[in-house]
Amino acid sequence: MDADPALDGFRALVGEAGLLTAPDLTARYLTDQRDLVRGVSPAILRPRSTAEVQAVVRLARALGYGLVPQGGNTSYVGGATPDRSGRQLVVSLERMAGIREVDAAGFSLCADAGAVLADAQAAAEAHGLMLPLSLGAEGSCRLGGNIGTNAGGLNVLRFGMARDQVLGIEAVLADGTLFSDMRTLRKHNVGYDLKQLFIGGEGTLGIVTGVALKLVPKPVAHATAWVELADGAPLSGLLAEVRRESADLVSSFEFITRNALDLVKDLGTAAGLKAGPGGALIIELSASSRRVPLDALMEGILEGMMEHGWVSDAFLAQSESQRLDMWRLRETIPEGEKQAGGSVKLDISVPLSQLDAFLARARAAVRQHDPDLVLSIYGHVGDGNVHFNILVPKGADRLAFTREVDAGLAHDIYAIAADLGGAYSAEYGIGRIKRGLLERYADPVRLTLMRRIKAAFDPENAMNAGAMVDPVP
Amino acid sequence: MDADPALDGFRALVGEAGLLTAPDLTARYLTDQRDLVRGVSPAILRPRSTAEVQAVVRLARALGYGLVPQGGNTSYVGGATPDRSGRQLVVSLERMAGIREVDAAGFSLCADAGAVLADAQAAAEAHGLMLPLSLGAEGSCRLGGNIGTNAGGLNVLRFGMARDQVLGIEAVLADGTLFSDMRTLRKHNVGYDLKQLFIGGEGTLGIVTGVALKLVPKPVAHATAWVELADGAPLSGLLAEVRRESADLVSSFEFITRNALDLVKDLGTAAGLKAGPGGALIIELSASSRRVPLDALMEGILEGMMEHGWVSDAFLAQSESQRLDMWRLRETIPEGEKQAGGSVKLDISVPLSQLDAFLARARAAVRQHDPDLVLSIYGHVGDGNVHFNILVPKGADRLAFTREVDAGLAHDIYAIAADLGGAYSAEYGIGRIKRGLLERYADPVRLTLMRRIKAAFDPENAMNAGAMVDPVP
Repeated sequence: MDADPALDGFRALVGEAGLLTAPDLTARYLTDQRDLVRGVSPAILRPRSTAEVQAVVRLARALGYGLVPQGGNTSYVGGATPDRSGRQLVVSLERMAGIREVDAAGFSLCADAGAVLADAQAAAEAHGLMLPLSLGAEGSCRLGGNIGTNAGGLNVLRFGMARDQVLGIEAVLADGTLFSDMRTLRKHNVGYDLKQLFIGGEGTLGIVTGVALKLVPKPVAHATAWVELADGAPLSGLLAEVRRESADLVSSFEFITRNALDLVKDLGTAAGLKAGPGGALIIELSASSRRVPLDALMEGILEGMMEHGWVSDAFLAQSESQRLDMWRLRETIPEGEKQAGGSVKLDISVPLSQLDAFLARARAAVRQHDPDLVLSIYGHVGDGNVHFNILVPKGADRLAFTREVDAGLAHDIYAIAADLGGAYSAEYGIGRIKRGLLERYADPVRLTLMRRIKAAFDPENAMNAGAMVDPVP
Repeated sequence: MDADPALDGFRALVGEAGLLTAPDLTARYLTDQRDLVRGVSPAILRPRSTAEVQAVVRLARALGYGLVPQGGNTSYVGGATPDRSGRQLVVSLERMAGIREVDAAGFSLCADAGAVLADAQAAAEAHGLMLPLSLGAEGSCRLGGNIGTNAGGLNVLRFGMARDQVLGIEAVLADGTLFSDMRTLRKHNVGYDLKQLFIGGEGTLGIVTGVALKLVPKPVAHATAWVELADGAPLSGLLAEVRRESADLVSSFEFITRNALDLVKDLGTAAGLKAGPGGALIIELSASSRRVPLDALMEGILEGMMEHGWVSDAFLAQSESQRLDMWRLRETIPEGEKQAGGSVKLDISVPLSQLDAFLARARAAVRQHDPDLVLSIYGHVGDGNVHFNILVPKGADRLAFTREVDAGLAHDIYAIAADLGGAYSAEYGIGRIKRGLLERYADPVRLTLMRRIKAAFDPENAMNAGAMVDPVP
């Protein structure tokens, strides 16, 4: 028997293993990835099918519960954590993890929304294809969350955001109705493209239960370079040259500052990789045909950069293990930040042409605010995304420091980004943590339209209420 | 003096040259490209700025007029033609044709919605970049229309639809408010991506007045092949091989049947180009760097096809003039159809893996219906788009035949497409002509959501009423 006898009704729908109420089992669903938001839920519901999600939504609504969909629970903005009212039920998609179909000739994959991203990648690869979506959390994040947050990651420069990979979607609406648009068409102009609202909609319009994604030919060749940048090397100039000279076969263009690299110094030393005065770049070209001479393309690119005086030194990975060394450095930085006491993460987006201006002005703003603060700056700058992270000073309380930065310095940085045509959320989204920023920075016309759309889908604010936006009354 | 003194108010807003009422001047705005729909409008309004569009919308609403935005008026579905009530005003964007900015380092272009597509392409090219959107009407169609209809065209396979090119949008809403989202960011996760609703929204949610578009490095090298297909050569297999072996540097994969080519026989003979038993393909690879050996890639691709027995003969264009000959053949087919007495155009979309199945079944359906009908089939099959056109029989009345096909045979073809996961509109959209199809084929859940969105933006149905969908009451 549960505290709330109403829960028995849910148990009948999702089975014994589908309903978790014991605190030791539910805890991990009730706090976010960075432990910044904690919520309460009478139960975690784990449906096994789209039909079960529909039934769960209908019963929850009849009983007056709200619903918070959750995938791998890897949000950086508290997007999947219930509030503390006890009136929201977490719906975990983790038992809906199947790959439904890979259509190799059609270059598409259909899967349940609870499929782990890495599993979907592997399914594509088994057919000689690639699902281009790739991010640090890929071993645990799930497709529904990737779609709901319009995830970014490492391959955006070449293949776009999660949005650009989506061909079709299936979602359960606030009244339990199924919106089914699981098409695999490349061209389909038949009215408003409703799936676009669910992509990046953070579960506020419905629970995504299935997705159809584009695949591309699997790369069989890579050329990966580690570039030590000279002082003042212009990122936007470098990127333009790399895009042109690689015939846009560049799949990654990652920038790492010296400070960020210091956080993983041991790894760097072991691999013999270091930053130049202007930081470092990982540039990777990839191709699905070995007939494309990637190494020669990369050598041409590096020579051009040398001639410009933009590069102090550069290395082309000579083996897969050297390539993985380079990537390991980049991918270990978030862990390095954690070990150094944590960081406040600002997820900045600026137009490609404003990258250098943004970095110069934002660094100066931090220095002026407190010259002792240490920055860890890195990111997918090939798509204008800078992870501008401020390390928690030694001895400071992480949460208190986070609040202090969010209330003050962060706004100076966001204002610089906004002034350059940029924004305060490139890929993390709004969730619960950035709602204040949305209200502060969004054009009121835009905010009103968002609230009207929310009202058109979910007038009673039952779907992931507290995240992103409330409906107009 | 005009018949309606209210028009004087508009004249004050847009100037003498901005208001057309004389029938010889207004006629071309009041019928569609194919002369299938004719409307009435007391005046054609031609504002010069976004502010003038806002003022026009406000005055029109105060006077009880609806608004029909129009760009180059090249719709195939009557998307920009007013009804016959005389209560709708056409708003032509043709005097808002400026390119606002090309940001070469940022790979972006901002323009007024009335800019002609070819002018925007030229502006990009002047900076060593390319605007990938390209279609037959590019010399006269305008960006606002391209966005409003989510235009497709020749480069979708590599670069996606118009939707995929859009970074930002500016639109005047039904109450004259400006929705301004002219960002040039690659990553921008700050709530529902509202611009996606205007893209393909056919002017029913507001009048798009400005757009920010992605640019890519300008191709400097091409390899273009004309391929005569053997009988039974599988299009989806060919496409998969070309994508993989070209490292996805394939920018066009156009299919032309023998019948379609017969319509431009003189050109074909002059150029020495003909179809094989299975039709013909134009395959084009392109790259922004001369270091990529495109000709060698193409030769490898063609050799592979020969080995599979899919190809009876193939030619690699040896000069730019040979390349243009190939494209001229493809691009002259619509004109050839016109000269042969016209055609009923079915704009089919199917999953890439279903191309061959669709063609076989749809051809059989036509044969069964009437073995004397002649088909002109061609299209951007690299993205699953088949232009399945039925020639008007000699001596038949074009309009009567169109109505007959639309009422009968077309549905058989649409049903085959639907059965294979496809649809009745790949790139043309809904407009006024395909509203019946939308109502017939759309999932009722989807249609209801569309109507609710329309109501959220335009509850009084003032914006391009009659196109696509009406608001829920």
